[in-house]
Amino acid sequence: MGNNKTIGLVQTQYFTFAEYKDNYLELDSGVRFGPITVAYETYGKLTPERDNAILICHALSGDAHAAGYHSPNDSKPGWWEDMIGPGKAFDTDKYFVICSNVLGGCVGTTGPSSINPRTGKPYGMAFPVVTIGDMVKVQHRLVEYLGIEKLLTVTGGSMGGMQALEWALRYPDKIASSIIIASTSCLSAQSIAFDAVGRNAITFDPNWNNGNYYGKPVPATGLAIARMIGHITYLSDEAMHRKFGRKLREREAFSFDFISEFEVETYLDYQGSKFVDRFDANTYLYVTKAMDYFDAGEYYGNGSLVEAFKRVMSRMLVLSFTSDWLFPPYQSGQIVDAMIKAGKDVSYLDIDSPHGHDSFLLEFEIESEVIRNFLTATYKMVQEERVK
Amino acid sequence: MGNNKTIGLVQTQYFTFAEYKDNYLELDSGVRFGPITVAYETYGKLTPERDNAILICHALSGDAHAAGYHSPNDSKPGWWEDMIGPGKAFDTDKYFVICSNVLGGCVGTTGPSSINPRTGKPYGMAFPVVTIGDMVKVQHRLVEYLGIEKLLTVTGGSMGGMQALEWALRYPDKIASSIIIASTSCLSAQSIAFDAVGRNAITFDPNWNNGNYYGKPVPATGLAIARMIGHITYLSDEAMHRKFGRKLREREAFSFDFISEFEVETYLDYQGSKFVDRFDANTYLYVTKAMDYFDAGEYYGNGSLVEAFKRVMSRMLVLSFTSDWLFPPYQSGQIVDAMIKAGKDVSYLDIDSPHGHDSFLLEFEIESEVIRNFLTATYKMVQEERVK
Repeated sequence: MGNNKTIGLVQTQYFTFAEYKDNYLELDSGVRFGPITVAYETYGKLTPERDNAILICHALSGDAHAAGYHSPNDSKPGWWEDMIGPGKAFDTDKYFVICSNVLGGCVGTTGPSSINPRTGKPYGMAFPVVTIGDMVKVQHRLVEYLGIEKLLTVTGGSMGGMQALEWALRYPDKIASSIIIASTSCLSAQSIAFDAVGRNAITFDPNWNNGNYYGKPVPATGLAIARMIGHITYLSDEAMHRKFGRKLREREAFSFDFISEFEVETYLDYQGSKFVDRFDANTYLYVTKAMDYFDAGEYYGNGSLVEAFKRVMSRMLVLSFTSDWLFPPYQSGQIVDAMIKAGKDVSYLDIDSPHGHDSFLLEFEIESEVIRNFLTATYKMVQEERVK
Repeated sequence: MGNNKTIGLVQTQYFTFAEYKDNYLELDSGVRFGPITVAYETYGKLTPERDNAILICHALSGDAHAAGYHSPNDSKPGWWEDMIGPGKAFDTDKYFVICSNVLGGCVGTTGPSSINPRTGKPYGMAFPVVTIGDMVKVQHRLVEYLGIEKLLTVTGGSMGGMQALEWALRYPDKIASSIIIASTSCLSAQSIAFDAVGRNAITFDPNWNNGNYYGKPVPATGLAIARMIGHITYLSDEAMHRKFGRKLREREAFSFDFISEFEVETYLDYQGSKFVDRFDANTYLYVTKAMDYFDAGEYYGNGSLVEAFKRVMSRMLVLSFTSDWLFPPYQSGQIVDAMIKAGKDVSYLDIDSPHGHDSFLLEFEIESEVIRNFLTATYKMVQEERVK
């Protein structure tokens, strides 16, 4: 029963730090970095009170194009079309929705593939290591530039959820709420391990060439391997069983050779090669590193998530999915427990779904229902507060 | 409370098909392949009745050296030393224990790195694709050559368990029992996916050179990536958390670069590079393919494991481990259920362990207790049957 309404044609816009304040940003590493350009899109209209703005944060492979179409010929809309649009969860008839590409990204925001003005060449590995906190500082600058003092909510799935959590901690008085979906306050050793193997696959690829491959053959095989590993972690064992099982592709019997013959193999081949066409390998390195470093309890609470959450001044909705084994429900549970112990306003739903981590992109009906109610209540609170 | 007794110094022996019958083996693919040499070791003594022989089948990266030491200077004993020796589960004071390297292997048995007598060069990818069934046919020939008509038991963990299961189905009257540990009757789509990515990592490595790398630089980075992926699947999320958590290696703070800094990263680096020194990349391809193809229910029961098991004439003990997510307990449960439905003698224990798939190499105390009792009972039955 999906709502097929779309925001329609949209354009990516660009904001440069130089247009606003200074050209630089103090990174968590201590490095002072700039200039910075941010690619972003907006959907819906900001109210005169500027109180209906929602920031959407994307996951590892996402970008600023969250909804609508860039051209009438586009075969696919933005990555969260099911959730953003007229009458949808993030209702563009009511709310002003913003989505920007992260710092270190490869779809418009400054990242390792951007030209370093000091050399005239792409940064490559001269790009500084950035954190989820740095990504959020850049978003904060964009939000200020757009004239929004306080966001109605910040949300995202997976790495997007980490950014939303970071907002709640870094800018406690700049948001009224956050919605953390299929995410975690820090990666487990197992998740770091998967990221590390993906990065090794890229840096072991001879074409990687210490990150200097722009204008030359890219480390396509390394990036494809990294993506394949990722895709296994995005689906559950059960989802893979339902989707592929042990079915063979276009064959009745085993071929007794090494050509991909199980359907799950050809699926991974396809996902790997498709990704290489649209994503920069160096960005994969930087963004996974930012995720590995993210540890809200360590950074803000000296190892205690409860201590960290004492600074939170906004409501929080946490959603997890039963079959997500990349950021399993127990990690969402840790966030919820710590919020409760810190005496904060938190709601939690563990959604029963067989789709694994990818559920946050697929279970939009139940997500929509929960988020719609949460947003309506939050918006009412914000408006009532202003009247007071 | 481990038993520290060891079988002591042992030697790998070699059996060639030519010494016995003909030089060839009919493979499941239809290919007639030979010559074949088999590397094997034996521990303990065969009784005059030849009724106390146990065949141990190794897993993906194992070999014929299951127990004891090849030299007094060896830093490590065989791979299942904890289970094989005087007074141990596979008690060499009582039983005659055999372990051989699998067909397609790289530690003495004919495989892709062996010399093809028709060309004078290593086979490489000219080696035929083999199945778990083919591995077992080779073991059967070895067992016949050793003058053993019926094995007391066939056992192994992981891929070793698949071979044991295959024995129960292919040579139902040649074994009195099987012990299937941390194994499955067929790989899930997720396990096939992990294998496929590992194979891709190898074949994408430019040094792989379509398998023709012998005498040249080997596809070390591809094989290392494959091994790293494997190691993640051998440990549980909880085991990785206990072992590494988010601990940094030799550092207090993040280094903001791409050098491995989390302990789990340096662990994987080490496992990857250590493996490259001892294992052949082409064997990795062939052996994982054999595992992917294995499907006992499909091969012997036209899709039904119950039908397949109707041919079983031996007892079976199945062991799984609660935290094993590569071959999860539900897969062992499927074997047990089907054995029961087929009216066969089966015992099952799901062992509570945090160590993941690796448990079969680590939980030797509980394994020993269960296996010792199972073997004693089986041996008694075999001896009583002979008296009748």
